[in-house]
Amino acid sequence: MSVPEGSHVPEFRTIGITGIPLVQRGDDLAGQLVDAAAAQGTPFEDGDALIVTQRVVSKAEGRVLPLDDFEPSAFALDFATRFEKDPRQVEAVLRESKRIIRQVRGVLITETHHGFKCANAGIDASNVGGLDLVCLLPVDPDASCRGLRDAVRERTGAEVGVVMTDTFGRPWRHGHTNIAIGVAGLLPMRSYVGLPDMDGREMRVTTICVADELAAASELVMGKVDAIPAAIIRGYAFDRGEGSAAEIVRELELDLFP
Amino acid sequence: MSVPEGSHVPEFRTIGITGIPLVQRGDDLAGQLVDAAAAQGTPFEDGDALIVTQRVVSKAEGRVLPLDDFEPSAFALDFATRFEKDPRQVEAVLRESKRIIRQVRGVLITETHHGFKCANAGIDASNVGGLDLVCLLPVDPDASCRGLRDAVRERTGAEVGVVMTDTFGRPWRHGHTNIAIGVAGLLPMRSYVGLPDMDGREMRVTTICVADELAAASELVMGKVDAIPAAIIRGYAFDRGEGSAAEIVRELELDLFP
Repeated sequence: MSVPEGSHVPEFRTIGITGIPLVQRGDDLAGQLVDAAAAQGTPFEDGDALIVTQRVVSKAEGRVLPLDDFEPSAFALDFATRFEKDPRQVEAVLRESKRIIRQVRGVLITETHHGFKCANAGIDASNVGGLDLVCLLPVDPDASCRGLRDAVRERTGAEVGVVMTDTFGRPWRHGHTNIAIGVAGLLPMRSYVGLPDMDGREMRVTTICVADELAAASELVMGKVDAIPAAIIRGYAFDRGEGSAAEIVRELELDLFP
Repeated sequence: MSVPEGSHVPEFRTIGITGIPLVQRGDDLAGQLVDAAAAQGTPFEDGDALIVTQRVVSKAEGRVLPLDDFEPSAFALDFATRFEKDPRQVEAVLRESKRIIRQVRGVLITETHHGFKCANAGIDASNVGGLDLVCLLPVDPDASCRGLRDAVRERTGAEVGVVMTDTFGRPWRHGHTNIAIGVAGLLPMRSYVGLPDMDGREMRVTTICVADELAAASELVMGKVDAIPAAIIRGYAFDRGEGSAAEIVRELELDLFP
């Protein structure tokens, strides 16, 4: 692992994909991504990581739903009244969740059916093409990523890794960052378990979540208003394989902050 | 914020800085970074972000200490005995902490004197040039970053932003990622508060912790055995200003997971 002088300088590029039209239910998202990447002079290449936001995948997959689909329960009505929320939106959060982790003032931190822990079950009521709509997370983000990976291969011949991102808050730290909620064609973790460090001992930090780091890098080129919903990371030699974002989720029994 | 077709494609480069010698107490780290970046053909440029790992800064600042400096308390001795740890190392963790957040089996999650929440107060007993040494976090990482920023400017004329990173675990998610523990010359947060989204409403996610995303990106080019302890992020237009990593730390009273 040591890098002698004169050896290769590690470098990767993070490239926003521009010119993607507003995505609608049923759209061929992979086709739009392939066309847009080519149109801006950066067609997909073998070994690229394609990073795509949850929102365009959800839109293409029809996960944008009318708020009126969510008839509020008594619990949702009470919570919404006390904290001046839309009760239908609260109901949507509850239906997308299997567990409420914290309910403090108007904040609902829940565990989604996928196992992700985040505010409001990752539901977004803004910027989804109409004021009375909500955008839910994809039903199976890993499967969505596999679909994109396969479609990019079919159209371009390029074997890419895919990471689907969402922008989550964190305990302990202000601000949100992009993290991985879906993965295909790459291993989300890079393990250094058993590797000796420079003193010959095992290293302290042994597993890096590269999928989350790829997601974080991509955010820096993405617009916050859907103008740039995807990015290419080129030149980073991720570990290829059939990974999944489910591997990243810490099991409840191993969680020190349940 | 919308990006019409044919407009600028956002892109940045993440470049590892190779060829840095093993850093010792008192070394001129900024000089080493400037020389190494130039030697590999990527001298610092105005607007670069210099990302540097905590470990080389700690080494240069003399924060590598003999374990024997830490005479274990009764509490440290008891904990170490029960979980087969080095009692001197446990004592070092306690002295670097102002609060134990979780103590489960052999795991100590603490809040450091800086306010960072992490395992073992960020102390590293591996790979510090000797088996009976520990590497502590810098006393004031923001000040260390300001020092590096000033020294790079003096030597090269380039005005760079600086982020110091460490590799932390997270609640809820497996694997570690690089985050920011020190900042200079850039604002760690980018705020979208009050900005309308495409439907004209305020956006759900309003503050992005770009410092943590820069840190995460840098990890992807860094070696895990100190061979590449720094990186340049070039082409990302961070917000210049006198930011600090202290701004990222969530105050206890706002913390849902104390």
